[in-house]
Amino acid sequence: MSSVAGKRAAPVPLKHVSITGGFWAERQSVNRDVTIPAIYRKLEETGRIESWSMAGPAAPPSSHQRIGVRVFWDSDSGKWLESAAYSLATHPDAELQALADDLIDAIAGAQREDGYLNSYFPVHFPEGEWANLRDNHEMYNAGHLMEAAVAYHQATGKRKLLDVLARFSDHIAATFGVEEGKQSAYGGHPEIELALVKMYRETGEKRFLDLASYLIDERGQAPHYYDYESVQRGERPEDYWARTYRYCQAHLPLREHTEANGHSVRACYLYAGIADVALETGDDELSRLSRLLWDDLTQHQMYVHGGVGPSHHNEGFTFSYDMPTETAYCETCAAIALAFWAHRMFHLDPDSRYIDVMERAIYNSSLSGLSHAGDEFFYANPLAAYPGVNPLGRWDEQVEDGHYRRVKWYHCPCCPPNISRLIAGIGDYSYSQAGNRVYAQLYHSNAVSLDIGGQQLQLLQSTDYPWDGNISFTVEAAGAVDFELALRIPDWCYNYQLSVNGVAQRVSVDKGYAVLGRQWSDGDTVDLTLSTPVERVMPHPDIRQTAGQTALQRGPLLYCLEEVDNGPRLANVCIPADSELDVSLDSELLGGVAVITGKALRIEPAQASSALYRHHSVASYAETVFMIKAIPYYLWANRDPGEMRVWIRSS
Amino acid sequence: MSSVAGKRAAPVPLKHVSITGGFWAERQSVNRDVTIPAIYRKLEETGRIESWSMAGPAAPPSSHQRIGVRVFWDSDSGKWLESAAYSLATHPDAELQALADDLIDAIAGAQREDGYLNSYFPVHFPEGEWANLRDNHEMYNAGHLMEAAVAYHQATGKRKLLDVLARFSDHIAATFGVEEGKQSAYGGHPEIELALVKMYRETGEKRFLDLASYLIDERGQAPHYYDYESVQRGERPEDYWARTYRYCQAHLPLREHTEANGHSVRACYLYAGIADVALETGDDELSRLSRLLWDDLTQHQMYVHGGVGPSHHNEGFTFSYDMPTETAYCETCAAIALAFWAHRMFHLDPDSRYIDVMERAIYNSSLSGLSHAGDEFFYANPLAAYPGVNPLGRWDEQVEDGHYRRVKWYHCPCCPPNISRLIAGIGDYSYSQAGNRVYAQLYHSNAVSLDIGGQQLQLLQSTDYPWDGNISFTVEAAGAVDFELALRIPDWCYNYQLSVNGVAQRVSVDKGYAVLGRQWSDGDTVDLTLSTPVERVMPHPDIRQTAGQTALQRGPLLYCLEEVDNGPRLANVCIPADSELDVSLDSELLGGVAVITGKALRIEPAQASSALYRHHSVASYAETVFMIKAIPYYLWANRDPGEMRVWIRSS
Repeated sequence: MSSVAGKRAAPVPLKHVSITGGFWAERQSVNRDVTIPAIYRKLEETGRIESWSMAGPAAPPSSHQRIGVRVFWDSDSGKWLESAAYSLATHPDAELQALADDLIDAIAGAQREDGYLNSYFPVHFPEGEWANLRDNHEMYNAGHLMEAAVAYHQATGKRKLLDVLARFSDHIAATFGVEEGKQSAYGGHPEIELALVKMYRETGEKRFLDLASYLIDERGQAPHYYDYESVQRGERPEDYWARTYRYCQAHLPLREHTEANGHSVRACYLYAGIADVALETGDDELSRLSRLLWDDLTQHQMYVHGGVGPSHHNEGFTFSYDMPTETAYCETCAAIALAFWAHRMFHLDPDSRYIDVMERAIYNSSLSGLSHAGDEFFYANPLAAYPGVNPLGRWDEQVEDGHYRRVKWYHCPCCPPNISRLIAGIGDYSYSQAGNRVYAQLYHSNAVSLDIGGQQLQLLQSTDYPWDGNISFTVEAAGAVDFELALRIPDWCYNYQLSVNGVAQRVSVDKGYAVLGRQWSDGDTVDLTLSTPVERVMPHPDIRQTAGQTALQRGPLLYCLEEVDNGPRLANVCIPADSELDVSLDSELLGGVAVITGKALRIEPAQASSALYRHHSVASYAETVFMIKAIPYYLWANRDPGEMRVWIRSS
Repeated sequence: MSSVAGKRAAPVPLKHVSITGGFWAERQSVNRDVTIPAIYRKLEETGRIESWSMAGPAAPPSSHQRIGVRVFWDSDSGKWLESAAYSLATHPDAELQALADDLIDAIAGAQREDGYLNSYFPVHFPEGEWANLRDNHEMYNAGHLMEAAVAYHQATGKRKLLDVLARFSDHIAATFGVEEGKQSAYGGHPEIELALVKMYRETGEKRFLDLASYLIDERGQAPHYYDYESVQRGERPEDYWARTYRYCQAHLPLREHTEANGHSVRACYLYAGIADVALETGDDELSRLSRLLWDDLTQHQMYVHGGVGPSHHNEGFTFSYDMPTETAYCETCAAIALAFWAHRMFHLDPDSRYIDVMERAIYNSSLSGLSHAGDEFFYANPLAAYPGVNPLGRWDEQVEDGHYRRVKWYHCPCCPPNISRLIAGIGDYSYSQAGNRVYAQLYHSNAVSLDIGGQQLQLLQSTDYPWDGNISFTVEAAGAVDFELALRIPDWCYNYQLSVNGVAQRVSVDKGYAVLGRQWSDGDTVDLTLSTPVERVMPHPDIRQTAGQTALQRGPLLYCLEEVDNGPRLANVCIPADSELDVSLDSELLGGVAVITGKALRIEPAQASSALYRHHSVASYAETVFMIKAIPYYLWANRDPGEMRVWIRSS
């Protein structure tokens, strides 16, 4: 990226961001020590590593071998490799690198002469190759392997996987496209679009960008490719199990879409790819489309924890302001995909409102996907939990209860390596740079190396964020450097103090950033204090499910009540409007956590009775005062099982 | 039934109850003029009448012909005939009787030599006969035809259908049973059990009761018959689409059941049959089982409108205190089946608590199943409705939106003829008699003919119930008659006045009845005034979905708010605890309805904003006072579509 002022913004790569302590150092340490090894073991146990030998494992667990889940095995290898690559970029580890190299060798060995790469179809179902783009995830797998290839190249300089994926991309481009003799097709689960733009950025080779553009332009065009391929398979298009191409954002040509819809992970990966292509091609229509979809999603369809997709049925969107709490799906992957999209939106349209959403999604409904210990995972991230509730409404059967308790693995384990790669890659989301303006996006303790018009400097950041809002920067530079430090004032922050070398500053806020432009010298310090009182969150009046209820937030963290701290029947708890809410550090709790305490009421009938319904004229309510204890939402379900609730009745 | 004091209680048959005006006269008039003809037309249109020719209709609507719904066609004929019979019993109609006679002739003509009777299997799927008792509804159909046969015999004295069903019953008894050479089986959808007891009571022939007893005792026994028949069909028992025999109350032998579970219509029909058999056989264990299941259902699993079965997935029960509102299933048939069961429980254990539930279910979640005009039907009866909500959570497909707007017919049209037969048969639920005690169960204007130890008398009842609580009785008798008039004091009533011939009476209440025992003479009058203030209903503290909310009830009628009267965003409406609620007759509304009005608050953010979430420190709520108008729940969705809500926030 150019560093000339006025040039477009780009992320500062994670290799330049050394995390030096605090929140993310701890999360990355658990990721390296526990999560990455745990996921690798599961890849091995379930046959995913062995599958690249193109022989198939001897006796794989049968339920993991169903074609419905078998077809995305390759993506799990990809995401694990990507996570390992980010970790290696900042924390070299010979053993991990050897493991990754072996896996890459296996993947490379599985590639066919013509470039096609898939661990399933050539061996197990040759006639299925490219026969069902709607369902079979071949392009999705390719995308995740491409992201891994780019990450591994950046981390290690090794390009073996990058070359493999370039050849696979060329195979895809030779098979699909507008030209004579090619099919006009695209994958049912978007992901490859954003991955191809990464390939383009890494290699500078425009053919990857062209393929991404093609896949976006082709999506949803008539006559519909998925109709065609259904008929080719001897199926009736109307028998599509998901009932409508809205599920995979292919019901209309993309440029005609006006709202976020369908499967939410597919949607957000796709929208991220659209933003990438818009940025790289300068296509104004795609930029406008990106903003239209963004506004729809964030103004009508986003949960307070940054989760998206209320419905279990389509793993996706329903309609505006529909925010069920206990049955919310809010897949971990969807929050992560939203964070990815948000990050791209900022670089398309530098404004902190995108990063505010990114931060919301990362700290809340993404991080909740991982246990504190690092080896158990949530797929769904509801806003309330009640023991015994079956989120699918299937009362007469068992379901993977990992939807409400974290588990070690899933038949469709897309979420575990996704949260792992997000944590390993958090450095990528920390700073952006546009010419001589440096944006501080996520606050945490780190040292970032910057190049300002050819001048090198280090910026040291020190903070206990998100536990408090005190952030200090120190400049380390050989000489004076003229640059703007753009400090994000988060949307949740109404008061902040800013000083340079101890002198209070008054600066205007530009699109959400307090911009300090000056000649900086070695040893200069900046102190930013974001005020982080406990905030009561009011839902939009059209959200019927949480009317009359309040959520607690402090800084970027959404809080919740758990039964283990507050007793059962959380629906009967009411936080009076005038109740004072205090923050304190509970150093015994899950490694040290700022908890919120305060007086609340438990409002229940004054007289015990087995009657389901009583009349107020003959029975009454009693209010019992007690102290609530709220913990950060992302940490729920790490202790005794029980009820959980984000939205609390208020008065 | 004997009329000697101390003998067991039995319903006074509807032929002896002449409805003379008021609420039920109007509902029965609509039923006769609109509903019964409308259902017959649908039976014709969909091929159900023609199906008895055993040739099959020329071109039936294909979606109505799927085996999944085709297998219960016969029950629809049965329920229509039963409804027609009750109507003919009190309102002779030569045209209707001719139509019924023709249908009975067709049914009789369809019976096979060996007694087997089914419009589907012999012609369309001979190898399916008795091959899938779990799913195929042959016994269920038999049960509904038996109920029709008994009703038609009582109404007209004609026994053709009764003889046909007796032969079918004998065929069943010859095929299934504990004896050598018979299969040990029972139907997946209970219903025949209670019908066989009706056959026994009508004919006095014990073989029908014995078959009912056998079917109850066999249910759920190991080795499991449904396992056996699955294997016979070449299927694996574990592939059962409903996943567990709990769905059809066959997971355990019935005497080991401790809670109401599975499909709620199946459950309540079955429990009604158990109570019937307990009463007729004097089986104390079955009596205790009945009370155990009753207490579980009414103390843990019953909605405030008398609906049961929260889940769409199994059309049935979930777990104690689980009462979702907007997604509640609460099938019309389940409320009706609960009313049937309640009525039987009273006769097993004469106590008004059963009739209180019966009244709750009839006036609220049963009657809501029928439009005011009489030709549209609800299948589900939710406690809240929001336009656009898909009750199945299936966002990417169309569903029969009759789950939220009444429609003319369903693929599975069990509810339309069920509500029709309940209304036509309401006279059966009005009085019971045990020796010289006469129980007044449901209050309405009628004249009932009674036989007290051989003495004949008429009791005239006059009331505007449920619109007010003033009820007057007049005795018409040739001479003095010694009997007890037991007047139900409903569970919702805390104050009442009672007078005989204008003289105030103080009587003790015995199991919910104010009992007036005396020598009655012609012209004696009784005036009962039940106080009917507007009551605010409090939910049990374990019902999390309605915590902090109140429902309005007056007399037996539950009320609701509709958008057409109260504007949108009903979730933001709050009824202050001290708000005065008035009752007035709205004579323009749906034929004249008592409505509830009063001051309420609409609590919404003071400042308009497109933000989904705002912090209370920078935004606030405003309370707008407005007058709410609540209408009886059973009348909702008869005007403009929009939101509906039973449970309203309260303060």
